[in-house]
Amino acid sequence: MSSSLNVLLVGAGALGSMFAWRLQISKQVQVTAVCRSNYEAVKSNGFQIESQNFGSQTFRPSKVVRTVDEAVANGETYGFILLCTKALPNLGDNSDIIAPAVTNPKTIILLIQNGIGIEDPFYARYPGNPIVSVVAYIDVSQPSNGVISHGGSISLMMGLFNTSNVAYDVAAAQRSVGELSAIWNDNGAVSAVVDNIQAFRWLKLVWNASFNTVAVVSGGNDTHKMLADPRCKELIKNLMLEVYRLGEAAIGEPLPSKLGMNSADDCIDRTNSRETPVMPSMLMDYLARRPMEHEVILGRPIEIARKLSVDVPYMKAVYAMLVMVEKGYMDSKL
Amino acid sequence: MSSSLNVLLVGAGALGSMFAWRLQISKQVQVTAVCRSNYEAVKSNGFQIESQNFGSQTFRPSKVVRTVDEAVANGETYGFILLCTKALPNLGDNSDIIAPAVTNPKTIILLIQNGIGIEDPFYARYPGNPIVSVVAYIDVSQPSNGVISHGGSISLMMGLFNTSNVAYDVAAAQRSVGELSAIWNDNGAVSAVVDNIQAFRWLKLVWNASFNTVAVVSGGNDTHKMLADPRCKELIKNLMLEVYRLGEAAIGEPLPSKLGMNSADDCIDRTNSRETPVMPSMLMDYLARRPMEHEVILGRPIEIARKLSVDVPYMKAVYAMLVMVEKGYMDSKL
Repeated sequence: MSSSLNVLLVGAGALGSMFAWRLQISKQVQVTAVCRSNYEAVKSNGFQIESQNFGSQTFRPSKVVRTVDEAVANGETYGFILLCTKALPNLGDNSDIIAPAVTNPKTIILLIQNGIGIEDPFYARYPGNPIVSVVAYIDVSQPSNGVISHGGSISLMMGLFNTSNVAYDVAAAQRSVGELSAIWNDNGAVSAVVDNIQAFRWLKLVWNASFNTVAVVSGGNDTHKMLADPRCKELIKNLMLEVYRLGEAAIGEPLPSKLGMNSADDCIDRTNSRETPVMPSMLMDYLARRPMEHEVILGRPIEIARKLSVDVPYMKAVYAMLVMVEKGYMDSKL
Repeated sequence: MSSSLNVLLVGAGALGSMFAWRLQISKQVQVTAVCRSNYEAVKSNGFQIESQNFGSQTFRPSKVVRTVDEAVANGETYGFILLCTKALPNLGDNSDIIAPAVTNPKTIILLIQNGIGIEDPFYARYPGNPIVSVVAYIDVSQPSNGVISHGGSISLMMGLFNTSNVAYDVAAAQRSVGELSAIWNDNGAVSAVVDNIQAFRWLKLVWNASFNTVAVVSGGNDTHKMLADPRCKELIKNLMLEVYRLGEAAIGEPLPSKLGMNSADDCIDRTNSRETPVMPSMLMDYLARRPMEHEVILGRPIEIARKLSVDVPYMKAVYAMLVMVEKGYMDSKL
């Protein structure tokens, strides 16, 4: 087994564990999982996965550790780092979290996170390492430590981030990323390497900047409740239209279509037609009084809008509310 | 004492009791107060007023009753009705609440309420009676039943609502309104009769459509907390600019200036410079889980914007959130 297929998972929550699992199950990959709150549970029992797609399964990572330092304590090197933490750049640059494992210039860093601008601090800090921007589509949660509840979907789109002025062999990195993607594809996770990954980031933002955010600032509502009110539905649509317009201005071409989702209306209709309402991840963070990813979901896009002179009043209104709501509960936790 | 100076107060809360008091204190006016939750307290002890302006005082209305029916049970007639309830037309037309007392064609109906479009149902139901639209500026609350806490300001702007196609003597009504206004003026409440009262309604909406609403959808914040965040402050300013623009389109001329408040920035600076932060009335309703006046503060203005093709995205975003937040807590009370 090639040491280049040693994978370090940082942020071993619901999403990260699923994607790491579909790599290790290939038997070509060994996963070292850095676990925090779920360390004891995963160390003892592995991840207990209940999946509509894969059934009841246990995923025992090759190694379970508490910190990145521990993951390299005996000189281990990793071909890939999967970073699956929440993206909270407003709380500080956390690109240093993986630093102890980025010793090998060949280590490829995959950022499986939502939002816009997440790659910048990693690109700045690790100019010698390929940074892969990954957009994930997966329906998964961790109801208790180490217990993973997965629905039916698991897919990935990925692509190398900005390859100009980098100090690595781009063609070799492309090949390695292609190999990893192929392992996912061969093992139940639909995966594709694309050369316009930013376009797919913006496309995913259509949903995240609307349903995720409004779920919170409307006082805590799932997708069905939001769409049942015509005014709230119109707000969601207006947010989506802003993201389409801004994304197009940012990448210089219309956003791609995916799975027949070509418009705000499609996106709303698809969401509305789901039998079970969706509790967006930001709503879960809000209900648990955790920090929310508003910076990469709305803050950075609004900055880009300002630079490009694109008017995004709905995004600005919802962003201001979101920041205030979070401030209210984070302050009261002090 | 002329029976035309019998005044019926409907909605004998903090605001209503203060304005009725400054009439009765003239000794020219007798007030019958229709009290609901504070009936027992007011019947026994009158209103206990603690005012920066007027000191510690007791206001005993000439008569305290529970209902409008009771107020006319012995054939009493009223020259004026002061309607000071909250304006909640989305919960149903409540213009019938005063019907038993609107038997005399000379009864003048004063609507001392916030928002836009509040006069319509009264104008439609009582074509033979003068409808006076009143904008109040007063800093007052009722911390417990019958106990009134008043700051320093108490003033009124008023004017007859739409006098076209009405079945009363407009000149006579104007004189009566002028007389009532003069009594207020002579008794400590600054009062003026104007011929552009709608302009002042829109001007007051500058504050109400911004601070009042954002206080709620930001998760419950007073004026200082809202203004401490640059994004929230910008949202408040953008809401104000929309009201200025929409009001101007609705009335056909720029909004008047008042007390040196000529712009959104003035309005924000004045609010910010107050030593004590303000808890807007809508925030108090939100915290007490009561219905909020979002229909007359944002809903009607947004309808008007649609008709006039004025773009008001900030108002629409905040309105949608406000409606959803209210729905959340009203539903959970069922």
